[in-house]
Amino acid sequence: MIVLASGSASRRAMLTDAGVAFEVIRPQVDEDAVKASLKAEGIEARGLADALAELKAISVSRRQPGRIVIGSDSIVALGAHESAGGAMLDKPDSRDRAAEQLRMMRGGTHRLVSAVVAARDGVPVWRHVDTAKLHVRAFSDAFVATYLDAEWPAIAGCVGCFRIEGPGVQLFSQVEGSQFTILGMPLLPLLGWLRDVGEMPA
Amino acid sequence: MIVLASGSASRRAMLTDAGVAFEVIRPQVDEDAVKASLKAEGIEARGLADALAELKAISVSRRQPGRIVIGSDSIVALGAHESAGGAMLDKPDSRDRAAEQLRMMRGGTHRLVSAVVAARDGVPVWRHVDTAKLHVRAFSDAFVATYLDAEWPAIAGCVGCFRIEGPGVQLFSQVEGSQFTILGMPLLPLLGWLRDVGEMPA
Repeated sequence: MIVLASGSASRRAMLTDAGVAFEVIRPQVDEDAVKASLKAEGIEARGLADALAELKAISVSRRQPGRIVIGSDSIVALGAHESAGGAMLDKPDSRDRAAEQLRMMRGGTHRLVSAVVAARDGVPVWRHVDTAKLHVRAFSDAFVATYLDAEWPAIAGCVGCFRIEGPGVQLFSQVEGSQFTILGMPLLPLLGWLRDVGEMPA
Repeated sequence: MIVLASGSASRRAMLTDAGVAFEVIRPQVDEDAVKASLKAEGIEARGLADALAELKAISVSRRQPGRIVIGSDSIVALGAHESAGGAMLDKPDSRDRAAEQLRMMRGGTHRLVSAVVAARDGVPVWRHVDTAKLHVRAFSDAFVATYLDAEWPAIAGCVGCFRIEGPGVQLFSQVEGSQFTILGMPLLPLLGWLRDVGEMPA
């Protein structure tokens, strides 16, 4: 059985809904410290999501010899186009911070990058990064307050301050790209690879 | 409160998840007869989905004066490109028919068209049609059998023989377009219109 190196409810739900058998083992890594250090080096969003997904997969893989371990990470980056040193959003740690991030995002197009890495015996054996574009509405301050009345603190763990599968959909005029990428993991490429290596029926 | 003229569980779930207040009133129309007659005239998929969405909205709207009534319809059409008189899939009425449709779809790219029409006092007041593309894998006959063991009869009411929010995702190597369109209703344009007419907070 494969291992999902993530405590994320939406990643678990994606695999369960798809009919994949897996076990969750949370990675023991200081994600925030690694993120801060890579950001300080001016890494862009795709590189950062990929590095964090690899870190999680490898961290668990070292303790689970012979097993396929899946790590994944998502980043929301401000602006429609990739740029080194561009602003990225952290998970909001307070309602005020969430309101501030929502006001930064509104009226603009931003990127949501999700990366998935598979590791075995502590070595990455497959990886995929995908970007979706979020067209955020020019919503009112009153909307922000009503939205957070409904969604705080449920979105405290969500980069971008939204659950696309819930009221978060009201933030957007349009989304471009894969729903699974927006939910936090490029599922179809992962399923394809699991079939290629015989872990799922083809 | 708006009215959803549909008994579809996935359309209800979409509106509920988005936080929209609505009441369900099922349309009393002979959908199959209308569909057969329009197909006989050589209508293409977008026109057919739009016509059926309008029919459902208007049918309920006539009995609900002053209210906004939402009708919706989805069609799966074989092939990657629109063509008059092209083959469209009906909801599978047996497990054998579902297996046959899955074998027709496999290894190809097909279109899923979803239309939504809003009506008031028996007159359409807004409409939107959107197409998503489904890249269906070249799965094995053994996969079809295992898939139907899990998903029949749950997919009996699903055009295209899949629930994208469940094991149906395993049919595809890639999907292009909006998840909401694939689930059966272009949700973001509908929410935009509901905000424009003051039915939802902006």
